[in-house]
Amino acid sequence: MKKNLLLTPGPTQIPPEICAALGRPIIHHRTPQFQENLKEAVEGLQYVFQTHNDIYLLASSGTGGMEAAVSNLLSPGDKAITVEGGKFGERWTELCRSYGVEPHVLKVEWGKAVSPKQVQKILDADKDIEAVFITLCETSTGVTTDVEAVAKVVGGTKAVLVVDAISGIGVTDLQTDNWGVDVVVAASHKGLMLPPGLAFVSVSKKALALIEQSKSPRYYFDLRKAKKAMEKIDTPFTPAIGIVIALNESLRHIKQTGLESLFARYERLAMATRAAAKALGLSLYPDESCISNALTTIRLSSSIDGEKVVKRMRDTYGISVAGGQGEELKGKVIRIAHMGCIDEYDILTGLSCLEKVLQEMKYPFTLGAGVCAAQRVFNE
Amino acid sequence: MKKNLLLTPGPTQIPPEICAALGRPIIHHRTPQFQENLKEAVEGLQYVFQTHNDIYLLASSGTGGMEAAVSNLLSPGDKAITVEGGKFGERWTELCRSYGVEPHVLKVEWGKAVSPKQVQKILDADKDIEAVFITLCETSTGVTTDVEAVAKVVGGTKAVLVVDAISGIGVTDLQTDNWGVDVVVAASHKGLMLPPGLAFVSVSKKALALIEQSKSPRYYFDLRKAKKAMEKIDTPFTPAIGIVIALNESLRHIKQTGLESLFARYERLAMATRAAAKALGLSLYPDESCISNALTTIRLSSSIDGEKVVKRMRDTYGISVAGGQGEELKGKVIRIAHMGCIDEYDILTGLSCLEKVLQEMKYPFTLGAGVCAAQRVFNE
Repeated sequence: MKKNLLLTPGPTQIPPEICAALGRPIIHHRTPQFQENLKEAVEGLQYVFQTHNDIYLLASSGTGGMEAAVSNLLSPGDKAITVEGGKFGERWTELCRSYGVEPHVLKVEWGKAVSPKQVQKILDADKDIEAVFITLCETSTGVTTDVEAVAKVVGGTKAVLVVDAISGIGVTDLQTDNWGVDVVVAASHKGLMLPPGLAFVSVSKKALALIEQSKSPRYYFDLRKAKKAMEKIDTPFTPAIGIVIALNESLRHIKQTGLESLFARYERLAMATRAAAKALGLSLYPDESCISNALTTIRLSSSIDGEKVVKRMRDTYGISVAGGQGEELKGKVIRIAHMGCIDEYDILTGLSCLEKVLQEMKYPFTLGAGVCAAQRVFNE
Repeated sequence: MKKNLLLTPGPTQIPPEICAALGRPIIHHRTPQFQENLKEAVEGLQYVFQTHNDIYLLASSGTGGMEAAVSNLLSPGDKAITVEGGKFGERWTELCRSYGVEPHVLKVEWGKAVSPKQVQKILDADKDIEAVFITLCETSTGVTTDVEAVAKVVGGTKAVLVVDAISGIGVTDLQTDNWGVDVVVAASHKGLMLPPGLAFVSVSKKALALIEQSKSPRYYFDLRKAKKAMEKIDTPFTPAIGIVIALNESLRHIKQTGLESLFARYERLAMATRAAAKALGLSLYPDESCISNALTTIRLSSSIDGEKVVKRMRDTYGISVAGGQGEELKGKVIRIAHMGCIDEYDILTGLSCLEKVLQEMKYPFTLGAGVCAAQRVFNE
């Protein structure tokens, strides 16, 4: 009887209370009862997004929310900056190209964060840029972008700042209104502890003006429709009813705990995991100056096949962590998530399983060193 | 303690076994375990769709599947026929226009079905038409299209036939392969007894060729990506994991029961509801020659406000039926669904509640006449 512990950066574990909410009988969406749920969800999300902006709910995974941002803000021939420091930054570029938007691709070395000065340089050189697309936490590398600093640079220009916060919302600080972030895209299956299938898009007034102008074809993800429906506390198409209702369970918990203490909690989980990696003689993949608290990417010894580590942890011991993505990282790293309801004991469980597998694979280290290093951080 | 019985045409009731599956701990989607689920789901769907064609799963509501059909099959400037006999037929037209496709709109009187000859006439007159978009069961009116007859007309031309089967799949016969239907769009929350949030698109070889040619911008709904991923039993973006897993519960049940007996079951529920309406002195909205077994649309007496009937049944007695949509039908009809796990006793419950409310509203009729007429059909 394996417990099947998820330490993956999306989907993350769903707490039993939220599982129970997902198993409740369904209600119809065109009812006052669902409207109450939708209203509560938007208000709760505004707390998590730290914004008073409108937030629209889309029945899709996070990528649907990203597409909504691109197709609603920009028209074919428009120019944008996309910051590419990993797989999810690349998605912004692909999306822009799919919609005939000309991306100025700002390539960032994997494991490093974009420098706001580089963004500034491009914005200074090209006054036609309409949007800057960045990633709060690049899940493929474990790097966090300094959104506040990028927002300062973008703020003075005509461009809107769009942040893919799918892997960071509720996990790491993102002050949408204070920092002036125009569009934030998030999803249900990471820090919000829900199944995938629901995306969220918050939209500033500056962004709303672009949405009215965009000539890109769109229908299901048309945010003009979402806005119009939301004015009557409704959705233009059948919403992901079950996940919306369970979302309120999650949001109530988040509000009760408070964002500050959640951020502190994830930071402690991340610090412990980093300490453990080092105690095992392994290094961290991201530059420590921009390392994320949403997940820790550990570079394995070159003698160890990372794919095998992931497979053995999962298939033999029931503990799921993620491997590396893309040519750069495949087989070379493992990624341990800290999002959602993952707690100290889950991290110790994951680390002890990692130690077990490393020992089986004849990697030389002192058994218990990783777990103990993490315990030390937790008990401080 | 109200039971909150859903007799609405989407979402439909979710059986307790499927609710329980939705409440299970989540698994990761990039695992052999999820792949098994995805494979089983596609095979089960092929049984329900009566096809050997590929079926792609999209994390969206049904409209996302409809958009995928339009944006993947057609390019701006292409011509198509859209059959409009209700709200959902209109959606095809709107989608075509959003993507710069020129729809030849075939308006059909609400409550009547399209005549295949009318489709033929347009196809004969314009050899450039690339696609014909129809609706298996038009949920806004309760009319079923004779898909087989339309398919015969479209079959000999270069056009592909696309059927919105969101409200009909698993409920009424749709022989995708035998009849030669190129694209079938369906969704999770009607006959399949699941929450909304999952759409399905089956694609013939003729349609696949168009998909490779289409110049419409698309990314999240790009069926080329879905096809490539499905070759490795995968999805291009995070799937709606929870609903996919619960889908297999539903499909197992459907396979065990058999499509033929499901179709017969829904026909009996529909016949009973029609008999009840007549026994209450009310008429059926759709023409009986094309009346659907997925739901029954009952025209109320002009002295009765249909919106009030729906509201009172739901808010006072916990029985949800649907009202009328659009100017044509708002306040004038109620719609009672027969899809999914709705059974004879649910129908009798719904009818007895309708009688209660009609009596409260001083509509003259013999109490019990509707329920008894339905019982008579059931006990035959």
